[in-house]
Amino acid sequence: MVIKMISERIKALRQEMLKENIDYYIIPTSDFHQSEYVGDYFKCREFISGFTGSNGSLVISQTEAGLWTDGRYFLQAASQLEGSRIELWRSGNEGVPTIEEYLKEMLLLSRSRMNIGFDGRVIDIAWGRRLERELTETPNPFSIKYKQDLVDRIWSDRPALSANPIYILDEKYAGRSAADKLTSVRSIMKENNCSSHVLSSLDDIAWLLNLRGSDVACNPVFLSYLIVEEGSCTLFVNESAVNAEVRTYLDSLNISVMPYNDIYSYCFHGYVLLNEGTVNYSLYKTITTMAQVVNKPNPTTAMKAVKNLIEIENIRKVNITDGVAMVKFLAWLDKNNGKIPMTELSISDKLLEFRKESPDFVDISFDTISGYAAHGAIVHYEPTKESDIAVESKGFLLIDSGAQYPGGTTDITRTIAMGPLTEEMKLHYTAVLKGNLALSAVHFPAGISGANLDVLARRALWEMGLDFNHGTGHGLGCFLNVHEGPHNMHWRIGIRKSNTIPFEPGMLITDEPGLYITGSHGIRTENDLLVVDDKCTEYGKFYRFEVLTLCPIDKAGIIIDMLNQDEKNTLNAYHQRVYDLLSPYFEGETLDWLKKACEAV
Amino acid sequence: MVIKMISERIKALRQEMLKENIDYYIIPTSDFHQSEYVGDYFKCREFISGFTGSNGSLVISQTEAGLWTDGRYFLQAASQLEGSRIELWRSGNEGVPTIEEYLKEMLLLSRSRMNIGFDGRVIDIAWGRRLERELTETPNPFSIKYKQDLVDRIWSDRPALSANPIYILDEKYAGRSAADKLTSVRSIMKENNCSSHVLSSLDDIAWLLNLRGSDVACNPVFLSYLIVEEGSCTLFVNESAVNAEVRTYLDSLNISVMPYNDIYSYCFHGYVLLNEGTVNYSLYKTITTMAQVVNKPNPTTAMKAVKNLIEIENIRKVNITDGVAMVKFLAWLDKNNGKIPMTELSISDKLLEFRKESPDFVDISFDTISGYAAHGAIVHYEPTKESDIAVESKGFLLIDSGAQYPGGTTDITRTIAMGPLTEEMKLHYTAVLKGNLALSAVHFPAGISGANLDVLARRALWEMGLDFNHGTGHGLGCFLNVHEGPHNMHWRIGIRKSNTIPFEPGMLITDEPGLYITGSHGIRTENDLLVVDDKCTEYGKFYRFEVLTLCPIDKAGIIIDMLNQDEKNTLNAYHQRVYDLLSPYFEGETLDWLKKACEAV
Repeated sequence: MVIKMISERIKALRQEMLKENIDYYIIPTSDFHQSEYVGDYFKCREFISGFTGSNGSLVISQTEAGLWTDGRYFLQAASQLEGSRIELWRSGNEGVPTIEEYLKEMLLLSRSRMNIGFDGRVIDIAWGRRLERELTETPNPFSIKYKQDLVDRIWSDRPALSANPIYILDEKYAGRSAADKLTSVRSIMKENNCSSHVLSSLDDIAWLLNLRGSDVACNPVFLSYLIVEEGSCTLFVNESAVNAEVRTYLDSLNISVMPYNDIYSYCFHGYVLLNEGTVNYSLYKTITTMAQVVNKPNPTTAMKAVKNLIEIENIRKVNITDGVAMVKFLAWLDKNNGKIPMTELSISDKLLEFRKESPDFVDISFDTISGYAAHGAIVHYEPTKESDIAVESKGFLLIDSGAQYPGGTTDITRTIAMGPLTEEMKLHYTAVLKGNLALSAVHFPAGISGANLDVLARRALWEMGLDFNHGTGHGLGCFLNVHEGPHNMHWRIGIRKSNTIPFEPGMLITDEPGLYITGSHGIRTENDLLVVDDKCTEYGKFYRFEVLTLCPIDKAGIIIDMLNQDEKNTLNAYHQRVYDLLSPYFEGETLDWLKKACEAV
Repeated sequence: MVIKMISERIKALRQEMLKENIDYYIIPTSDFHQSEYVGDYFKCREFISGFTGSNGSLVISQTEAGLWTDGRYFLQAASQLEGSRIELWRSGNEGVPTIEEYLKEMLLLSRSRMNIGFDGRVIDIAWGRRLERELTETPNPFSIKYKQDLVDRIWSDRPALSANPIYILDEKYAGRSAADKLTSVRSIMKENNCSSHVLSSLDDIAWLLNLRGSDVACNPVFLSYLIVEEGSCTLFVNESAVNAEVRTYLDSLNISVMPYNDIYSYCFHGYVLLNEGTVNYSLYKTITTMAQVVNKPNPTTAMKAVKNLIEIENIRKVNITDGVAMVKFLAWLDKNNGKIPMTELSISDKLLEFRKESPDFVDISFDTISGYAAHGAIVHYEPTKESDIAVESKGFLLIDSGAQYPGGTTDITRTIAMGPLTEEMKLHYTAVLKGNLALSAVHFPAGISGANLDVLARRALWEMGLDFNHGTGHGLGCFLNVHEGPHNMHWRIGIRKSNTIPFEPGMLITDEPGLYITGSHGIRTENDLLVVDDKCTEYGKFYRFEVLTLCPIDKAGIIIDMLNQDEKNTLNAYHQRVYDLLSPYFEGETLDWLKKACEAV
């Protein structure tokens, strides 16, 4: 039945392709803003193929259909595509071409002009250029048609574009007025001799205007584009999302409101400051037909990375709120472990329940990872009804979760010993902990970046020939996206160099080393860190980290003798601080639990 | 008297400038190969100005004369230039222009075409281009005349160009034949579609041909250029340096010999592989008038950085030889401390005496730094007859020294407690030691570079708001230059990026954190490290360091409680290894001294 539906949809799409004279039509997984998560409106690839993974691109011609996805989804895609006659291309496997390479090959084989189509609003400019470059390398003629959304024509019951209400984030949270932020942005525009600046990344827009929304799951942002000009701005947004209060507020900032998609018919001119990494293919093409682009990072990206004093004060409070929820949850888990049936999902739901007890809780900041035993070793594991398993009184449970509060965003991972552990598990747990502690305790001079410090988080693992295949840390928004640039922490100095951006006081970075033993167990211990001033000496300015996350680290997995005195001191001082800051919120048996959890080793 | 001589020389130079119609003549401190040290023949700047420092450039016009030098030499230059009417330009001080900027300003003020002259063989191409770029920014016309050496015309008793005998380094030391190395170089030329490759850096030539010489102080290299072509080579060298044996050897490799300076009239053609960073202005101009340059690192640079198995075996032996000399010296110092008068120079001479006891000793690998008390805080301090001071039985003596042996090159620093130390001195000494130990003990995956690891060497200092203003480590030649690229160790990721070149097994790197308290004391503890294979696991290849240097680290300065157990273990294991490998060479009281020096803490 489902397969039949898929066949019909592909058939209908091919009809539309014929009408438009398009030979290959590409459907990626993206919204118009390269957001980390996409709303239902944007699930075209899922609608056409039936494949529900979070990553994948579809290429359709009159005779062929192929889906490209990554290693996380090979099994799921193979199963969901079965019988659909859509070929699965396993990205990253040897001999598997990229979509660009595949299309290049098709172009080489074609005898006439080849027309490639996609909705240019869901293609990022870097990828679009890569495609153009590949195709230009062949002698054969081609065209790229990017101004149509063919899926929209056949998707009769397509969900509406999300247009949830936009609301103002009070200055007591933002710490700085939008007018003031706009002044800073305009001065950078001036430095670059640009009369306008186009913003398309939703967190940049939300931060700049002190507005929030809920159009993207877990991210409190709203679908929009913003053009900043010298004396005024234009916000392109679904007008139904803008209530009278917000409209008055926008008026006061001299920001006019236009329909969301009208940016594609806006009259650009002169020099336009924008970050090519955040603008889609259609928008870029629209702008460059009329104006000169000055490609620079959005001024807002660096500004919002350095949290202001009011934001920092709020983030500290938010971490108490979130820590209280975590302690309630961990005490509950400890008390009920082995007494009531638990599954990964029921545990995740319980944690949400405790977080919701705070009146400040807005949403989770990403889908909770609750992975028991071997599931803990799947880095991006999220339990679903199908995958959910019982959590028993042995081995490790890995819980990575976070929340959105008006005062800030949290992200915390704890790995809990549910009962007996093997010696190997303890060895692994302690090595990961050593990394987490060493990184959090370092003092460093101005200029130091994530590439310089990562060794501290991995050294104990490397000594045993172990490692983990993800970054050690990422930036965090303040009541915004849980993954926020421009900085991060990984030793490998790559092309994008985000790990060589120096830390500055006010920046946030997560500290999350881990270890994943396929088929057995996964471990990760994650705290959020704030860069703060340390000393200023004749050698210059020194910084250190303040650990924001307040929640006991399970001691059951620690081989105490593996910790040196510095590491013990760091752990004990952390637990003392957790106790001091959280104990006022508890009494009775939860207070007892917290006291024990925070006892020195 | 001296000042009068200087005036006369400047006057004579100005006469020559008039003859050549040169308005500004530049005299830097360099040989034709950008060597680290320059021979007497190349001391033109000293001849004209009387200033003897190792760094400085002179600019002369008909009315003005200026000397640019760096902070190390401000005092010395001011004193040596007194009365000479040569203006001292303190490079790096606020408001002091670079020579390029100065000349640009002069060009802006000039009413007619300005002619700038220098001997293009002693100017590096990067600097020459920077000058051209600066001058081109003005509207006024200029010429650069680089084909004359005006100082040569007036320097009647100029020392001859060094032409010490060249000798063959036996394959039992080189580990690989020159024929084999040439095959590798030619295959890289082919990959780059180049029919010839020009080598100008002396250590690259010496390494490639398995030849050594002694034309540059402390570096066993010989003045030469080499052109590698598909079937033959041409070595440009002072022919008197080539004896019959070497000539036969060169013949066997199909290498013809031409006079040293004839490379400037060689007929280049096609595509020439060369590293712009190592070729002088004249040579570059000569080549580019006839041929196309393909600018890449010299293939030899990466090849010689990775020592082969025979070289490694020899380097290990050499470090025993050097360690034996160091132990004799340290035991002597300990025994005679407070009993006989000692000065920085007498101590340095004594160390040389002990090194010379080995029949394998060829030369020192750089001028010994023997700095007592406050002199230890001057990073580039070398005692001279004028600066030499008595070494007393208190405080620190810093000795940084090394030697050349046919089997390898050493570089070691020890900081010796000559008697009572203050608590601050001990604190500093222990913090430096912690860095040295942490770095030497790290295990790391393939891909890691110096920028990633430097934090280990500095962390203990940073914690106290302290730091040192030099790299933590540099590569080392094998019976070649004591400073050898392409890699090094410093956290700051700069333009040249040598610190982001990944470590490979067979590479050498020094481990030399330090601390310098102006007017009080200097501390540095330096060992040479070899990158070796560690484990190969599912996470990839892991490497670690083997400490090559074998010599006790003075324990008198250590605050034992500041070392954690890992650091104690590293130190004790190192001392045990030093004892095991060196004790067979000693008996009696020196053995007793060694035993005590190597006792565990």
